[in-house]
Amino acid sequence: MDFSHSPKAQEMMARVKAFMDKHIIPNERAYYEQLGPDHGDWAKWKVSPLMEEWKAMAKAEGLWNLFLPDEEYGAGLSNRDYAPLAEIMGYTPFASEAFNCSAPDTGNMEVLVKYGSPEQKKKWLEPLLEGTIRSVFFMTEPGVASSDATNMEATCVVEGNEVVINGRKWWSSNVGHPNCKIGIFMGVTDPNAHRHARHSMVLVPLDTPGVKIERMLPVFGRYDMPEGHGEVSFTNVRVPISNIIAGPGRGFEIAQGRLGPGRIHHCMRLIGVAERALKHLCERATSRVAFGKPLANLGGNRDIIANSRLDIDCARLLTMKAAYLMDTVGVFGALTEISAIKVVAPNVALKVIDAAIQIHGGGGVSDDFPLAALYGYARTLRLADGPDEVHRGMIAKYELKKYEAKTHK
Amino acid sequence: MDFSHSPKAQEMMARVKAFMDKHIIPNERAYYEQLGPDHGDWAKWKVSPLMEEWKAMAKAEGLWNLFLPDEEYGAGLSNRDYAPLAEIMGYTPFASEAFNCSAPDTGNMEVLVKYGSPEQKKKWLEPLLEGTIRSVFFMTEPGVASSDATNMEATCVVEGNEVVINGRKWWSSNVGHPNCKIGIFMGVTDPNAHRHARHSMVLVPLDTPGVKIERMLPVFGRYDMPEGHGEVSFTNVRVPISNIIAGPGRGFEIAQGRLGPGRIHHCMRLIGVAERALKHLCERATSRVAFGKPLANLGGNRDIIANSRLDIDCARLLTMKAAYLMDTVGVFGALTEISAIKVVAPNVALKVIDAAIQIHGGGGVSDDFPLAALYGYARTLRLADGPDEVHRGMIAKYELKKYEAKTHK
Amino acid sequence: MDFSHSPKAQEMMARVKAFMDKHIIPNERAYYEQLGPDHGDWAKWKVSPLMEEWKAMAKAEGLWNLFLPDEEYGAGLSNRDYAPLAEIMGYTPFASEAFNCSAPDTGNMEVLVKYGSPEQKKKWLEPLLEGTIRSVFFMTEPGVASSDATNMEATCVVEGNEVVINGRKWWSSNVGHPNCKIGIFMGVTDPNAHRHARHSMVLVPLDTPGVKIERMLPVFGRYDMPEGHGEVSFTNVRVPISNIIAGPGRGFEIAQGRLGPGRIHHCMRLIGVAERALKHLCERATSRVAFGKPLANLGGNRDIIANSRLDIDCARLLTMKAAYLMDTVGVFGALTEISAIKVVAPNVALKVIDAAIQIHGGGGVSDDFPLAALYGYARTLRLADGPDEVHRGMIAKYELKKYEAKTHK
Amino acid sequence: MDFSHSPKAQEMMARVKAFMDKHIIPNERAYYEQLGPDHGDWAKWKVSPLMEEWKAMAKAEGLWNLFLPDEEYGAGLSNRDYAPLAEIMGYTPFASEAFNCSAPDTGNMEVLVKYGSPEQKKKWLEPLLEGTIRSVFFMTEPGVASSDATNMEATCVVEGNEVVINGRKWWSSNVGHPNCKIGIFMGVTDPNAHRHARHSMVLVPLDTPGVKIERMLPVFGRYDMPEGHGEVSFTNVRVPISNIIAGPGRGFEIAQGRLGPGRIHHCMRLIGVAERALKHLCERATSRVAFGKPLANLGGNRDIIANSRLDIDCARLLTMKAAYLMDTVGVFGALTEISAIKVVAPNVALKVIDAAIQIHGGGGVSDDFPLAALYGYARTLRLADGPDEVHRGMIAKYELKKYEAKTHK
Repeated sequence: MDFSHSPKAQEMMARVKAFMDKHIIPNERAYYEQLGPDHGDWAKWKVSPLMEEWKAMAKAEGLWNLFLPDEEYGAGLSNRDYAPLAEIMGYTPFASEAFNCSAPDTGNMEVLVKYGSPEQKKKWLEPLLEGTIRSVFFMTEPGVASSDATNMEATCVVEGNEVVINGRKWWSSNVGHPNCKIGIFMGVTDPNAHRHARHSMVLVPLDTPGVKIERMLPVFGRYDMPEGHGEVSFTNVRVPISNIIAGPGRGFEIAQGRLGPGRIHHCMRLIGVAERALKHLCERATSRVAFGKPLANLGGNRDIIANSRLDIDCARLLTMKAAYLMDTVGVFGALTEISAIKVVAPNVALKVIDAAIQIHGGGGVSDDFPLAALYGYARTLRLADGPDEVHRGMIAKYELKKYEAKTHK
Repeated sequence: MDFSHSPKAQEMMARVKAFMDKHIIPNERAYYEQLGPDHGDWAKWKVSPLMEEWKAMAKAEGLWNLFLPDEEYGAGLSNRDYAPLAEIMGYTPFASEAFNCSAPDTGNMEVLVKYGSPEQKKKWLEPLLEGTIRSVFFMTEPGVASSDATNMEATCVVEGNEVVINGRKWWSSNVGHPNCKIGIFMGVTDPNAHRHARHSMVLVPLDTPGVKIERMLPVFGRYDMPEGHGEVSFTNVRVPISNIIAGPGRGFEIAQGRLGPGRIHHCMRLIGVAERALKHLCERATSRVAFGKPLANLGGNRDIIANSRLDIDCARLLTMKAAYLMDTVGVFGALTEISAIKVVAPNVALKVIDAAIQIHGGGGVSDDFPLAALYGYARTLRLADGPDEVHRGMIAKYELKKYEAKTHK
Repeated sequence: MDFSHSPKAQEMMARVKAFMDKHIIPNERAYYEQLGPDHGDWAKWKVSPLMEEWKAMAKAEGLWNLFLPDEEYGAGLSNRDYAPLAEIMGYTPFASEAFNCSAPDTGNMEVLVKYGSPEQKKKWLEPLLEGTIRSVFFMTEPGVASSDATNMEATCVVEGNEVVINGRKWWSSNVGHPNCKIGIFMGVTDPNAHRHARHSMVLVPLDTPGVKIERMLPVFGRYDMPEGHGEVSFTNVRVPISNIIAGPGRGFEIAQGRLGPGRIHHCMRLIGVAERALKHLCERATSRVAFGKPLANLGGNRDIIANSRLDIDCARLLTMKAAYLMDTVGVFGALTEISAIKVVAPNVALKVIDAAIQIHGGGGVSDDFPLAALYGYARTLRLADGPDEVHRGMIAKYELKKYEAKTHK
Repeated sequence: MDFSHSPKAQEMMARVKAFMDKHIIPNERAYYEQLGPDHGDWAKWKVSPLMEEWKAMAKAEGLWNLFLPDEEYGAGLSNRDYAPLAEIMGYTPFASEAFNCSAPDTGNMEVLVKYGSPEQKKKWLEPLLEGTIRSVFFMTEPGVASSDATNMEATCVVEGNEVVINGRKWWSSNVGHPNCKIGIFMGVTDPNAHRHARHSMVLVPLDTPGVKIERMLPVFGRYDMPEGHGEVSFTNVRVPISNIIAGPGRGFEIAQGRLGPGRIHHCMRLIGVAERALKHLCERATSRVAFGKPLANLGGNRDIIANSRLDIDCARLLTMKAAYLMDTVGVFGALTEISAIKVVAPNVALKVIDAAIQIHGGGGVSDDFPLAALYGYARTLRLADGPDEVHRGMIAKYELKKYEAKTHK
């Protein structure tokens, strides 16, 4: 066992950290000021000029597409080597975009690298890799419990040379971004096929007739400008059959492969979030005085700090192990571990953020500190990409398999 | 022991419940639509015409000033009898105002009833009781840990016939309300007096020169229009000495008396909130299907429902006990119990709301359900009127007193 | 609502408390010394002479059969009035016996009062009420999950004028007591009847041929001398048909009625246990010094003390509410509340005891303090009379009933 | 990062596992039967012949002194390589002794290897390495809070060529073992020296006049035969000055170095315990039926299983990281991590064991399963080698150090 980072990872960590410290962290407030006060009228959302500057700089420095293990298209880093970079970026909610590493583009690019046709790559992967356009993933639906994928109701039916798309999706993150041009839509193509061969993934340009953003959904009252989370209706949307990725019926298979790295990325960013919350907590604990003592010396605050450190370190190790397994045995050999971190990381982050809010008093629930906003972000990740309950169910299923063969069901 | 409600309480419960069911609950969405999308530019906030209608109706039906145990000025209900009414009103975040029972007016009116001079009563209590104006309480300060009241830095110094007020307050709830005309300001009058005799409470009309609302503070991203939580600066604000309530140096004493009933009211409303969250949770659990079963039959959901019921029932009983003690032995005989419910009620509400959010999936964090907004509200109440830590410290202090006399310190 | 105790309850509380303080608490160690070191060879167990003295004194003082609401046979106290007495007795694990109030005799006597024939009362109830014999309840079975009563495998089949009993029971508490002479056996009489009419309860004298105590079961390593928890086999045991209580097939009905008060008693005793643990905790916190301070002033200890006080007070109120409902609307109107306290009380007691153990350091896990032994006792009560899981399931079932009618199942 | 075990570790894991599976696990019950029923009369304790057989076999197979990283005296395994072996041994509470790897001998041997004089090594280290004698560590005292080492009251004063020892120690584990011949005593030599130079460690043969075992202490009612936990008095005990290890005043330094590996060993064994508890839990969940389903399919049981898996995996990774740091940067570079696992491992084990007890119903608290005994063992480890509170305090101290320099204290 060796818990040290590879020399390559260490070098990249230093460079990404320096970029964050120099460019992004000191300009967090300036970035939000460029966006203006949060609101849900997405047609008026705009891109921050700062972000465009950062993107240009990061690209110039080679800090670009770091998430992509494919050496031809991306940085060629293993999951183990990318993980600490995602943690560093996670400090600032919007930082990943500066490195062209933000969801859902990352997952969409991976899908196109692995399954895209040459034409699909040319048309959509290239501008995504360049950072000139952004993308969306249309999966979850408002009318059904999406934790059970077989509930999916939206359809993408093949008619001749076309695919006809109908249905309603929500939590379509990033759909409000002014640069968002393309979506990957998942729907039912053949309801009579085996349950893992019913769905297809289809590339849908957002300007295709019949695609309509109905509204943006707030998360704990915030719209996450300029990306947003949209509810989108599809009414007899027609795209060429060549827009299906890897052919009809392969949606489920692609989705499974897509979600592994995405979950790791989310979790590493959340660990960065948790570290930030602990930093704010400790800064407050050592600088604020009540009853004649710094808060750090009052009541159970040191226990809270210690438990935060414990929990964060556990979550990071578990995530690194999942990354290690993905690198060495692949997504399907790491399913338990991926589900594990998907449960652990958001809950750890929420616990630390909540403790940080509490020690900040009224300031903690306001926007004078980033804590309340981070809470909303982390809370959502107990639901996105499968709720805790589904992941716990998976872990238990694998655990019980060791015993069930021997006994009755 | 008798856990039943008095006939008077039962009758009032039925009437308030009917009012809620008929007028307020069906119009929740309409009310928010009258206010428009949430924003922090308080100068543009307005009063919902629906609220004015409800106030007129409630007053006409005698469902008015129910919180005020004083029979001359209010409904003359005991805390025990008012508690279930506050729970019923708590279902809808803004409902208390319809019955002229909303914080901080309730506490301010109580202060004026108990400590106000005839002139103060005439000028400020009467319109507050009528519901024609609203009020604010200036207590917490941004620069110091307000959990320790001795940290207070704002001053109200007597100079001849005037009081000169300087300092900065925040979390001044309701200060953004278009009808908010008067505030009770707490500050240091004599820093050399005994620590419980340093402070005074002063009536400050909001239009007095030197009073400036600097900004509104969001709570988990929301501004709670049209009441809001303001940060307010006071620069050489001068009011007549007759605006001091009960005389200089009595601020601490008044504050302590003021907070008891206020905390009970908050807690009972929170129990109403928790019941609402459990209702939404159960409705979702019985109506939504995944993996071929209603969610109620999946995983640990029934345990969550059972624990919610347990926790809510415990919190209600503890609150009723505090109300009983306040009615029978007074605030100072109920300090442990008041601190107890102040810790228990918000935490129970948060736990149930969080579980309800989780079972609603993405809908839970959006505004399609009231859950995310209620979470922000309840979270704040782990800080307002003293953070959990201070109340736990009080409870432990009282508990340990039973033993410390016998042993060394 | 009225949270005060009745004058009768207050008087009895003072008298029971005085008895405990004068006779039992100072002699705890002497009592255990009379019993000798704990071991599982029940044939050698003996009765402590101290216990016989206490019984005589308590009976003489009228502090006898306090649990029995029936005025003809017992003290005629309501559940509300008995509850605080059970709490006071609960301080010392073996104290209830001194007042002829110990399980399972209490439940067995109640069954005989309500359902016993005159002959059954004459023969078994009278000596139980006198305290000259003790009894056992044969319910749980080692081979099946007894949380599901329909799993029960033991049989009591009517053959002519006799009942033939076969099967194996365990956790037959008190069966090792030298004075234990009679058991109430529950088994299947008619497997084809409705599931609530299959079982009977039969009185089985322990000296009947075919009744064999196979062994005593330790609880966390202790045998609870001189009562013990036995595993007992029944091989063609024959008793007269007149030994069936209330007639064949009524076992389930009797069991349900029996368990309500029994659970309340357990819970009130547990609250007494929790109060004792908190007392030890606070005594240690104020008397032991580390790092220059009493433990009470270190780390999160005051939070632990405050939370213990909160939890105990909640559990007591919930138990009092269940008692109130049992007194006013009967067991079947209090099912939710009885299940509620059955979950809450043991878990609260365990939490407080565990915290007390921790603050006592090594002493806490030893027998220098009663804490480790109390932990084992309280832990068992998360299983006895239905595990937490079953009670949570009941509470959720009742909660969901409010919603299910309106929607689909 | 590389989460795989070294080839050497993998080979040793297979061999230790095979030894456990073949010899020890099938004979657990036989071993306890050789010892007889648990009791506190240590003079009658004896060694199990099975243990002597296993020791001979393990030594012959080279599975001996595996804990000792020193290649001259022991197996020369790194902490990383030994850790999984300790986990495997941890399955059975007494198994470590078979491999001459049981506490406190391991720590005592390490002390002698690192600090012992040639004579001390000859006389005491050699027979310990051979497994012909056993040893005890005299540290904790009954009269003071031992969590604060400066509280220590026992003395070892140099008088000419002798050391004179006085005081009282308890929780002297292993002192009851028939083969226990030597103890390392820690006491105050110079109360006026710097607080880290006051103490010495002295070798005290148990048959030295003035050494008296006063009693054995039970842990949750059990005496842990044949090792036991003794309370031992020292009255004018005189040993040659050459029995001081490394010279007077170095006790504190030695203690710190001693505790690092010992804590790792405890934690890895606890992880073995937790895995065993989860195994029993899953076996029960898949084999026991209630309400027509295996318990695994009822209520929240799958969540419990999943959380157990998560918690165990986190605890193992955290322990492996501490082992890695000890191997690469030494004990003093791993203090945070050692404190971290010392908090995490026992709490995780307790949580899983408790869940396993619950699913076993009455069987869980009895001795039909090892769970209740394991609970007592794991509970003690929240106190031994420093209570949770002290370790949390250490972690918080290190965390806050990052911030305190910048701000005021």
